[in-house]
Amino acid sequence: MHDFTIKEKILSKNDELAGENRVLLRERGVYSINMVSSPGSGKTSVIEKTLEALKGKLEVAVIEGDLQTDLDAQRIKKHGVPVRQITTGKACHLDAHLVGGALDWLFSHPEVRLLIIENVGNMVCPAEYDLGEDAKVLVMSAPEGDDKPLKYPAIFHASDVLLINKTDLIPHTDFSMARARKNALAINPGLKIFETSCVTGEGIDAWVNYLTGEMMTVVP
Amino acid sequence: MHDFTIKEKILSKNDELAGENRVLLRERGVYSINMVSSPGSGKTSVIEKTLEALKGKLEVAVIEGDLQTDLDAQRIKKHGVPVRQITTGKACHLDAHLVGGALDWLFSHPEVRLLIIENVGNMVCPAEYDLGEDAKVLVMSAPEGDDKPLKYPAIFHASDVLLINKTDLIPHTDFSMARARKNALAINPGLKIFETSCVTGEGIDAWVNYLTGEMMTVVP
Repeated sequence: MHDFTIKEKILSKNDELAGENRVLLRERGVYSINMVSSPGSGKTSVIEKTLEALKGKLEVAVIEGDLQTDLDAQRIKKHGVPVRQITTGKACHLDAHLVGGALDWLFSHPEVRLLIIENVGNMVCPAEYDLGEDAKVLVMSAPEGDDKPLKYPAIFHASDVLLINKTDLIPHTDFSMARARKNALAINPGLKIFETSCVTGEGIDAWVNYLTGEMMTVVP
Repeated sequence: MHDFTIKEKILSKNDELAGENRVLLRERGVYSINMVSSPGSGKTSVIEKTLEALKGKLEVAVIEGDLQTDLDAQRIKKHGVPVRQITTGKACHLDAHLVGGALDWLFSHPEVRLLIIENVGNMVCPAEYDLGEDAKVLVMSAPEGDDKPLKYPAIFHASDVLLINKTDLIPHTDFSMARARKNALAINPGLKIFETSCVTGEGIDAWVNYLTGEMMTVVP
């Protein structure tokens, strides 16, 4: 009970800071997404494909959350967009305070209209921490299995969009797209689902079209 | 700083309870392993293959840790071994208190010599929580990518054994076993590494032979 109260306080403070981030981002006309997943689902590859699709059309910046290393930030840098590394150490998720600390950096690039935040790979804890984003985008890779929505319901419930990624590997597994969709929608009937592969390119255009469309409704 | 102190207290209390679990398990001649991984690495399938290999040779019990659902426990039950479900709700890892609460159940099966604990799928938080186990076994699936040891070093550092699983999918990915091994051993030179596939059966015998050999040195 004692721990729960401490956790409630931490989450309540986080929600407050997330609200401040949201106001600041909106004032600057920046739309933001928080990308969450288990380790190795292909989040960074999806971001790279998204950057390629938006090149020359929209100015994007990326915040990379990792326990350690800037391997992902290095991958993003090659695309010529502003990228900021946040290293969390042992912390298993980004929080609104960490993201808030990167906003001065972000606003020093006034041309940016879309902020992509890549969270730490973790399908549990990031579900509870609002960063101030406009949409939470969950990436689940097909090799993880079609039962994942039932086993990690909180993050499926908290997300707005689900990318079912690495569809190119489905023929080599017992993954059923029908079961995955059914399980995901049972947890969250409002989820927008895209089937993507960074190997074949499947679904990337549909995802990017949706993203830019949503963005226009928030920061026209 | 304040939060850190609270966390230190929680971890210190957990270590104390883990020590008590360890003493009780040792007194009863039970060897135990704590299986950790990201969601969808194939932990449950590895446990099923391990149970098949040990059938008729060794009495095994399984504790299943999940946020919600008893899907994994149902899979294990089919193998005719005692299985206990621990549902953690929103908690992202098992802890020594939760496992301690299952020991009376375990000891009501005095024939059991090996306890397999399947932790919640999470490559971050379980690294810090000793359950009282004799060995921590990390399962990493090849589709997650060969950079995972560098990105989630704490859990690679805390583990005794690494199963690189789903090797059957390697030909369909850019995963390099040489890089994965090099990265894992850079973090933890003492890691015992097995390459496994629950589809082809590769490496399962080697893993089970190692497990029973290690066990004999602890609870002969």
